[in-house]
Amino acid sequence: MSVQAAAAVAPSAVLHGRGDLRVEGLPPAALLPGTARIRLTAVGVCGSDTHYYRHGRIGEFVLDGPLVLGHEPAGVVTEVAGDVAGLVLGDRVALEPGRACGTCDRCLAGQYNVCPAMAFMATPPHDGAFSTEIVWDARLAHPLPDAVSDEQGALCEPLSVGVWACERAGVGLGDEVLVSGAGAVGLLAAQVARARGATRVVVRDLAEHRLALARSHGLETELVGTEPAVASRAGENGAEFTVLLECSGAPGALGMGLGRLRSRGRAVMIGLPAEEPVLPLAQLHHRELQVQTIFRYANTWPTAIDLLASGRVRTDGLVTHRFDLQDVDKALMVATTEPGAVKAMVLPSEGEVR
Amino acid sequence: MSVQAAAAVAPSAVLHGRGDLRVEGLPPAALLPGTARIRLTAVGVCGSDTHYYRHGRIGEFVLDGPLVLGHEPAGVVTEVAGDVAGLVLGDRVALEPGRACGTCDRCLAGQYNVCPAMAFMATPPHDGAFSTEIVWDARLAHPLPDAVSDEQGALCEPLSVGVWACERAGVGLGDEVLVSGAGAVGLLAAQVARARGATRVVVRDLAEHRLALARSHGLETELVGTEPAVASRAGENGAEFTVLLECSGAPGALGMGLGRLRSRGRAVMIGLPAEEPVLPLAQLHHRELQVQTIFRYANTWPTAIDLLASGRVRTDGLVTHRFDLQDVDKALMVATTEPGAVKAMVLPSEGEVR
Amino acid sequence: MSVQAAAAVAPSAVLHGRGDLRVEGLPPAALLPGTARIRLTAVGVCGSDTHYYRHGRIGEFVLDGPLVLGHEPAGVVTEVAGDVAGLVLGDRVALEPGRACGTCDRCLAGQYNVCPAMAFMATPPHDGAFSTEIVWDARLAHPLPDAVSDEQGALCEPLSVGVWACERAGVGLGDEVLVSGAGAVGLLAAQVARARGATRVVVRDLAEHRLALARSHGLETELVGTEPAVASRAGENGAEFTVLLECSGAPGALGMGLGRLRSRGRAVMIGLPAEEPVLPLAQLHHRELQVQTIFRYANTWPTAIDLLASGRVRTDGLVTHRFDLQDVDKALMVATTEPGAVKAMVLPSEGEVR
Amino acid sequence: MSVQAAAAVAPSAVLHGRGDLRVEGLPPAALLPGTARIRLTAVGVCGSDTHYYRHGRIGEFVLDGPLVLGHEPAGVVTEVAGDVAGLVLGDRVALEPGRACGTCDRCLAGQYNVCPAMAFMATPPHDGAFSTEIVWDARLAHPLPDAVSDEQGALCEPLSVGVWACERAGVGLGDEVLVSGAGAVGLLAAQVARARGATRVVVRDLAEHRLALARSHGLETELVGTEPAVASRAGENGAEFTVLLECSGAPGALGMGLGRLRSRGRAVMIGLPAEEPVLPLAQLHHRELQVQTIFRYANTWPTAIDLLASGRVRTDGLVTHRFDLQDVDKALMVATTEPGAVKAMVLPSEGEVR
Repeated sequence: MSVQAAAAVAPSAVLHGRGDLRVEGLPPAALLPGTARIRLTAVGVCGSDTHYYRHGRIGEFVLDGPLVLGHEPAGVVTEVAGDVAGLVLGDRVALEPGRACGTCDRCLAGQYNVCPAMAFMATPPHDGAFSTEIVWDARLAHPLPDAVSDEQGALCEPLSVGVWACERAGVGLGDEVLVSGAGAVGLLAAQVARARGATRVVVRDLAEHRLALARSHGLETELVGTEPAVASRAGENGAEFTVLLECSGAPGALGMGLGRLRSRGRAVMIGLPAEEPVLPLAQLHHRELQVQTIFRYANTWPTAIDLLASGRVRTDGLVTHRFDLQDVDKALMVATTEPGAVKAMVLPSEGEVR
Repeated sequence: MSVQAAAAVAPSAVLHGRGDLRVEGLPPAALLPGTARIRLTAVGVCGSDTHYYRHGRIGEFVLDGPLVLGHEPAGVVTEVAGDVAGLVLGDRVALEPGRACGTCDRCLAGQYNVCPAMAFMATPPHDGAFSTEIVWDARLAHPLPDAVSDEQGALCEPLSVGVWACERAGVGLGDEVLVSGAGAVGLLAAQVARARGATRVVVRDLAEHRLALARSHGLETELVGTEPAVASRAGENGAEFTVLLECSGAPGALGMGLGRLRSRGRAVMIGLPAEEPVLPLAQLHHRELQVQTIFRYANTWPTAIDLLASGRVRTDGLVTHRFDLQDVDKALMVATTEPGAVKAMVLPSEGEVR
Repeated sequence: MSVQAAAAVAPSAVLHGRGDLRVEGLPPAALLPGTARIRLTAVGVCGSDTHYYRHGRIGEFVLDGPLVLGHEPAGVVTEVAGDVAGLVLGDRVALEPGRACGTCDRCLAGQYNVCPAMAFMATPPHDGAFSTEIVWDARLAHPLPDAVSDEQGALCEPLSVGVWACERAGVGLGDEVLVSGAGAVGLLAAQVARARGATRVVVRDLAEHRLALARSHGLETELVGTEPAVASRAGENGAEFTVLLECSGAPGALGMGLGRLRSRGRAVMIGLPAEEPVLPLAQLHHRELQVQTIFRYANTWPTAIDLLASGRVRTDGLVTHRFDLQDVDKALMVATTEPGAVKAMVLPSEGEVR
Repeated sequence: MSVQAAAAVAPSAVLHGRGDLRVEGLPPAALLPGTARIRLTAVGVCGSDTHYYRHGRIGEFVLDGPLVLGHEPAGVVTEVAGDVAGLVLGDRVALEPGRACGTCDRCLAGQYNVCPAMAFMATPPHDGAFSTEIVWDARLAHPLPDAVSDEQGALCEPLSVGVWACERAGVGLGDEVLVSGAGAVGLLAAQVARARGATRVVVRDLAEHRLALARSHGLETELVGTEPAVASRAGENGAEFTVLLECSGAPGALGMGLGRLRSRGRAVMIGLPAEEPVLPLAQLHHRELQVQTIFRYANTWPTAIDLLASGRVRTDGLVTHRFDLQDVDKALMVATTEPGAVKAMVLPSEGEVR
């Protein structure tokens, strides 16, 4: 495979404003020291991409110029800077979308996800990966073994959220875990919890088709509204779980979940509710509970790839919709237009996705 | 010192209903295996005692019969069951007020503060220590060295709250700690944080006289309303602290404190606000913060005693009011009637408090 | 099932001195508060039992009177003291063999395995379980679900060693674990490591038949003498593992294993070598390694039972020899007389082992 | 203060072979991106410098060309590369002597002390700091507040060893720490343990003058040979300590220290003995002890500087000998020629050391 030096432009889906997405040819980025050029083959669509498309902002992050969305990328190495070791042309890779500074106290301590100087794909002003190619730090390009497909490479991003959530919650042998919300992150996080030795993992959702997908991955499920009454639950005063992974962002989901945590339970907020939740202190107080949020992830890609390669995390059925680069706008809206959608994937390269 | 077998009755302050407190002679409790009889010399007054006195309940704990209040006791051993080793007559002791079952999975794992079968002094239906004597488990009677006074023995209880809060928050070398609320617990918790190596400890309160007390113990202080503007603060985006110990229970205190935590900051809720607080998720999300509650304490008395004996935690000036057993009702109201009150102490024995 | 009150004597295998084992009827023990009487159905043979039989001592623990061996017991509840909740007649249970005091600082902190007042089965002067029945603390009798057989109940003891070793080593997602020694403990510990999320677990032994057993449980194996040369190993300077579980007690096994640990690797000594090992400091120093020993276990039975019930730890093929109570002496020697032995089991009750 | 661009050569003490040290003018290093030029004012002498001087090697690190020794440097910033923020001319700084790659999995995880590509001052082939100046990564130059002298800046290196040892051992509130060896590292590590909340810290040594220095810093001491008999010691079976910091490297020191650790004790090997120590397994086994080595340090300079600035770690009396750059050879031998030596300091700049 030869270097793609001939490419005059890199077709990319550029967001110019709320609802204004155009596929345009952008000039290829320069190959700086420490970087590689990646031909993108599979890029997942995240709810945050959709949010930028519809609202032009997410909280304090505001679109202030044309922006390429997409931050769940996988692809093939087509060019490597001279000083890079460990990557060769043709390597299939999953890209970690955040480039931390590497020199601040957070980075030196391994907490690079909270690096104040983080450059994160598809977060203004940093372009993302809904494009035919991207130039990115070689240390953030993680080679994929044959057992992991390109689409799975792209799924390393939501899987990393699950890996990180379980790490921060300290999920381990003997834990009983409630995962509220069976979207891609919830389904993946649940499997990570199982791989870490959780005794019981229950995925809870409103949509039966998502729960069916969870069951096909061997997970226990609970349809919202059919949960057992407190009196009939096994556990400490009817509280059954030791960990809550709140992935739905639904109003009331945190309160519901905390109510089912045993003493010393740990909750992680992954999905963000539209309104700020009330902390049910009476419950928290007597049970000595812990609530934390997570922000992205650090050092999770090797683990995510290993979980996929070994089959401990399964992704079959997760990608429900696929789109060409021309149809990124449709991909961005699929979650709202298709009731059965779980994960949409953009395939910027024709024909050779594995 | 001889056994107090001759005592016909043990005078005690008994709460019969909201605001109805009577000093009565109760029959002395039997000395069961594993227990000791303690002549009480100093018993601190806690806000929860006052709350029972005024409201007859705290949340789900409801007064349903006559109850002796008081759960911050120190005293002198006057009788010891035959099977008890390690205590002798005349030992001055601080009593840990919670008696866990010792056999459930929580107790076996060392998490006895969340033992479902806990019998806790002054929590219905378990009598407390506003009395001349109490019979209590010998393993919960911690001998005091000469360097620790009886009143300091009683202060081991609020100090234990601080020890536990710092333990759960993992306060250590390099931490910068904001303590909101300069009551007894806040003042003690702040000193524990310092003893664990915190680089900076700031106590924040509305009342200048409490801050003066904090400064007399070598702590840095901040009067509410005089805090530096975000722009002028040193630290990550003007967020200066790594740990928040919220001891005030004031509305808004949690939100204020979380806003001043750096990424990966940890907050502990010690004071309970009257209304359930809103979690400021936008802040929590980007900063990967953690909020937890604590419930009492486990294995803290030896540490508390050592902190007092070595002078690393100072208590001078903390006990602002002292009362005889006859005046427990006044002691219970002092926090609301005396603006300068910090800690009230009941002295059930005449004359020999050290 | 009725109370076995009629039993005049409890036949037991009593060690009177080195090599002097006699099956005798002992008077049934009294049922003290908090205890239950258990009819024993399966009791595993441990190397320490054999050691007492052959040498009359283990280190500082010296046989100083007749002693019943056996500390890996399972059985059926036949009588329950009046104050015991949570156990009923007929319950099948696995017994935790160590009875800690429950009141010292170690017990209160959940570190009961290092309780100085521990009474441990088959450790002088405390009788063990090679008997038809035993009276034991009810809180140490863990009910077995149907999916766990009596023999598996007995195997909870060596499995607990594995659970504890992995807990102390902090085995988790992404770890690569070398288990040296494929006896019962090694085989079980390896499966625990896998259940906790270890990416790779390699069991190493001299005996091909034990490795075949490991492979039948889905584990990777390495025959001693066939290990890959350093130069051909993947990993940091040819060091491939992050955790060493040394279960063989073979001379040199610690040094060999430490040599294959990557930086920050953790080693746990489970098997005790006859001679005290030399610490290869040059290796330890540059790699910042950690070596620790474990002593028994704490709070492991619920986890062990769950691992067996869920099939995450398999035991098929592990019990290679079974003996009546009359033949405990043969059971004690089987490891030295039968090359193919892995685990010998004593079945004190006739006919109804599940 | 102007840029030292005019300096034609940088006088440096160059080791050409065993015992062959020559002060020579070296060409000034180029100022690469991300670096700063530092005029060195105080550089401590470490035992490893002496070892290279006398033996030409330390273990697998072999002198294979001229080498500048010295890796405990402090100085003043005289030139800053254009891309560096956070350092200005005239800043007084302590330099962290190890430059990790910043991109490997260890660096990304914050474990940069075990980065396989580490470039460490005075370790072949990387030159050290016995010179008038050095060019070094700006992120490794930690500004000193006025309260910390240049010599204290240089002492940040041995202090970092103590900070790291206490971190790895998890020294905290309630620990009782034995520090064996009262050299600079031991004296500093002991004070770190105290600052982290250790209840008791005992420094043990053969030399009374070093113990006197320890006492002058408020530490408890024990002269080797005068230790209390086991029978007279308070603690668990006469074992008094929870942590051992072995700083002496003396034969037998590890065994002695482990013998005085209570159950669950943690030992850190800091001093390396000439012969590899035997692990006293009988002790380790029953007490569930942990032994670990440390290798340099990670993220310790800010903590070290803060400990010095706040006075929680004192250094008065620690620097017993001072030398000009011309006399580095004498400085390297002072530990063997001067019985009263604790720390020798090389002062490469004339006149303005603070």
